Amino acid sequence: MRQFVILGHDAPTTPDFPLDDITGGAGRLDVLCRCVNSAFFLSHDIREDVRVHLVLADEFTVTFEGSDLRRLNPDERSTAALIRNALDEREEAIGHMPVESSPGVSLTRRGFEPVLEDVAAESTVVQLHEDGEPVVDVSPPENPAFVLSDHHNFEADEADLLADAADHRVRLGPERLHADHAITVAQNYLDTGGYESY
Amino acid sequence: MRQFVILGHDAPTTPDFPLDDITGGAGRLDVLCRCVNSAFFLSHDIREDVRVHLVLADEFTVTFEGSDLRRLNPDERSTAALIRNALDEREEAIGHMPVESSPGVSLTRRGFEPVLEDVAAESTVVQLHEDGEPVVDVSPPENPAFVLSDHHNFEADEADLLADAADHRVRLGPERLHADHAITVAQNYLDTGGYESY
Repeated sequence: MRQFVILGHDAPTTPDFPLDDITGGAGRLDVLCRCVNSAFFLSHDIREDVRVHLVLADEFTVTFEGSDLRRLNPDERSTAALIRNALDEREEAIGHMPVESSPGVSLTRRGFEPVLEDVAAESTVVQLHEDGEPVVDVSPPENPAFVLSDHHNFEADEADLLADAADHRVRLGPERLHADHAITVAQNYLDTGGYESY
Repeated sequence: MRQFVILGHDAPTTPDFPLDDITGGAGRLDVLCRCVNSAFFLSHDIREDVRVHLVLADEFTVTFEGSDLRRLNPDERSTAALIRNALDEREEAIGHMPVESSPGVSLTRRGFEPVLEDVAAESTVVQLHEDGEPVVDVSPPENPAFVLSDHHNFEADEADLLADAADHRVRLGPERLHADHAITVAQNYLDTGGYESY
């Protein structure tokens, strides 16, 4: 199982945003939608062994479960609609119990810390960092979890939590990448067994 | 200079498509928009040494020039608007002379064959192919040009043209990727000097 946690600092926590303005009115939800695309899509296929957690403003988390996913399309707008549908269930999301809003998409009332705790309990947490070890020198873990931030940097307390939880600190290359591009590169790194097996 | 040529088989050739329905009404223009994003964006930066050619239904080509680009945003909708603006100039695009519609974005009346000829004259053409050599075993060329297709496979005549023009035939990994993800992986391969230099 490959997991990706993405922090959406400006993301909406209510469903009253317009699908025609997801970059502005919905707090750069476009960034999170592209992350979902990068995590799941293969050409004419969906990666079933992937789980994605979008942490919305440290208040709610929308989780996409590859093995159960239906109705996911590659474009930003339709993914934003799935997130909006999940937020429609926010009154039902009590404690840490998930509410499924469509097949493979569920909402929980959790911020970053509890999500990271749950993920770290079952995965090898990989932190992407410009001072990290070159990823080519690190063997891919069996159950990796990559934690990424949206268009903002991690805040200090988030960075501390992540540093504590991380088993590896790696860099993907000499350039700083958008979160969705980093996910695509990480998937290719995992697909090729750390660039060893084609 | 890194170049990317992407064939949009169902792409519009007139500007009368709705920005709210670029997946349907605009012939999967979302695919091409994501390719532009993958080719140009770094975190808080744009790659200036990149040129992208979107070949629209083998009739027009919209070219994005990294060194001149302004007004490019990461989301699909705003990139679709730049393409629509370019198609607004289609009456002015005569012969192979480009018409600039916004800084760094221009339209030419060219299909795949003349675009490929022009690109091949100044670049090392790299074909992505599932039976190609593992990209990790190929040193990155100085001026590479990657040629990709949208959500459809190359048609037989396109595949023949490409096979004739290609200097290398490589595969990026064991999985078949969306075109935009392939561009992201290719950029990382080039950034890292073929996974040698971090």
